Amino acid sequence: MIDICILGTCGMMPLPGRWLSCALVRNGSTLTLFDCGEGTQIPWKSLGWGFRQLGTICLSHMHADHVAGLPGVLFMVAHAGRTEPLHIYGPAGTSYIIEGLRRIAPELPYPIIIHEIKGYERFTLEGGLQATSAPAAHGIPCLAYRLDLARRPAFLAEKAKELGLPVQYWSKLQRGENIEYNGQDFHPAQVLGPPRRGISFAYITDTRPTNQLIELAQDVDLLLGESMYDTVDDLPLARTNAHMVSEETAGIAKAAGAHELVLTHFSPKIHDTRQAEKAARNVFPHTRAAKDGMVVTLDFPN
Amino acid sequence: MIDICILGTCGMMPLPGRWLSCALVRNGSTLTLFDCGEGTQIPWKSLGWGFRQLGTICLSHMHADHVAGLPGVLFMVAHAGRTEPLHIYGPAGTSYIIEGLRRIAPELPYPIIIHEIKGYERFTLEGGLQATSAPAAHGIPCLAYRLDLARRPAFLAEKAKELGLPVQYWSKLQRGENIEYNGQDFHPAQVLGPPRRGISFAYITDTRPTNQLIELAQDVDLLLGESMYDTVDDLPLARTNAHMVSEETAGIAKAAGAHELVLTHFSPKIHDTRQAEKAARNVFPHTRAAKDGMVVTLDFPN
Repeated sequence: MIDICILGTCGMMPLPGRWLSCALVRNGSTLTLFDCGEGTQIPWKSLGWGFRQLGTICLSHMHADHVAGLPGVLFMVAHAGRTEPLHIYGPAGTSYIIEGLRRIAPELPYPIIIHEIKGYERFTLEGGLQATSAPAAHGIPCLAYRLDLARRPAFLAEKAKELGLPVQYWSKLQRGENIEYNGQDFHPAQVLGPPRRGISFAYITDTRPTNQLIELAQDVDLLLGESMYDTVDDLPLARTNAHMVSEETAGIAKAAGAHELVLTHFSPKIHDTRQAEKAARNVFPHTRAAKDGMVVTLDFPN
Repeated sequence: MIDICILGTCGMMPLPGRWLSCALVRNGSTLTLFDCGEGTQIPWKSLGWGFRQLGTICLSHMHADHVAGLPGVLFMVAHAGRTEPLHIYGPAGTSYIIEGLRRIAPELPYPIIIHEIKGYERFTLEGGLQATSAPAAHGIPCLAYRLDLARRPAFLAEKAKELGLPVQYWSKLQRGENIEYNGQDFHPAQVLGPPRRGISFAYITDTRPTNQLIELAQDVDLLLGESMYDTVDDLPLARTNAHMVSEETAGIAKAAGAHELVLTHFSPKIHDTRQAEKAARNVFPHTRAAKDGMVVTLDFPN
């Protein structure tokens, strides 16, 4: 199971009552943050998930509305008592920006490990989530991310009993290891069901639509995507500023076969998000506009 | 007249419902900001005083809770259309910190002029306020500030009439200039009343009490001073962390002959500021605890 809290939904600048667009993912006790604009620590405090378990920050790009809250969050993680490393992933230039911002947070009780990536990487996060990156098209180095939580095949207890295997050997086979019992070799395939679909989440913001992003979001349970503009009338603006109209984000969701689209990163000019939601639903019906503090829980189906 | 808005009252970190301690001063249409922690732009937006007229930022010191909001404020000033220079005053190290923070705000449509000062300077702000600085005792370079708005002596119209001076000559004399009329010299002293007390405001935070601070706050109308701790039980902590207990700030107000003390920069642990207010009033009765967004207006007496 993973919980995703959309701490804020606003693009460009924080507003009274609306935080900057970012997402906090909880997998077991481990936290992963996507983007960190000014003020991010405040709705995070209200959420009550704590700061100590933040293992990874994935940054889309280095515009201020996605990174200016880093010093505050780094301090909160320190106050919470973390001493284990914190990993920060971001595009080219991430180290330079963080070196600048950390001039006001020079001493922290945990190491920060910065990974500058290009958008073609797969890596494993603290807590075991599998991350995939893709380049986004925003005019400056920018990344989109996907998280996958794998699901083990079902353990077929009846088959294990048929093979005469005592219960104490089951867990190893369940974990995918071979065992030897009574001079005979047993393999996981003998007691495990077929592969099962896991849980997946994609975070795509501050970009024009591209085929690589469709590929990244293939079959995800949840696509959290930008809606900087809410009407196709703003398509020229979206092109100029390398953002998306909500219908374009819905187009990615549709082409990728996503299960649900949640819209976020609304322009500060959008006071009512229903227009964005309605327009997107014409392309991809299973769409919702995010609200600040909204939590989406993704679980394995029964 | 000057208006002082205490945009936030919290020390160390912003909290849900409580912004970081800072103050925005309005003199005519000109704005001056004292300190700029994370989130400062948000209550400022709610206030509705605009951003374009920000002429000066006075920073007490370079701890994150006093400067992390600078990139956001600099962007808001840019969005508002400012092209005139913005002056930033602060202690040694200000340029280094701002260079770091501006990595996420590298291009602005107005020049920023940084003045690193030691705490013994007098300088005139955009809008005509006279500023004075004093060193504070916070373990790192730290400054306290005072603002003075001078008041012209009253113009004695009866005297001008007695001298037979036509009305069109009065304004020059009122502004302090000599004039010649009918072959005769006239001086301001002939038509002006005695000197009059102006308006003054002192901003003292993140410091232990010192005599220099008492001198700085001499006879001010309003002392805005820190109350990091609300009970003398915390005096050892206050000494260790180079902050003040509310009674110590009240001691500065009393010794300086201030007219009013407003307490701010409360520890995040202080949920009810009445204890701090009560303790301070035992030393200096004319004390109030600030609330976020509180505006104090200082005007010349009738």
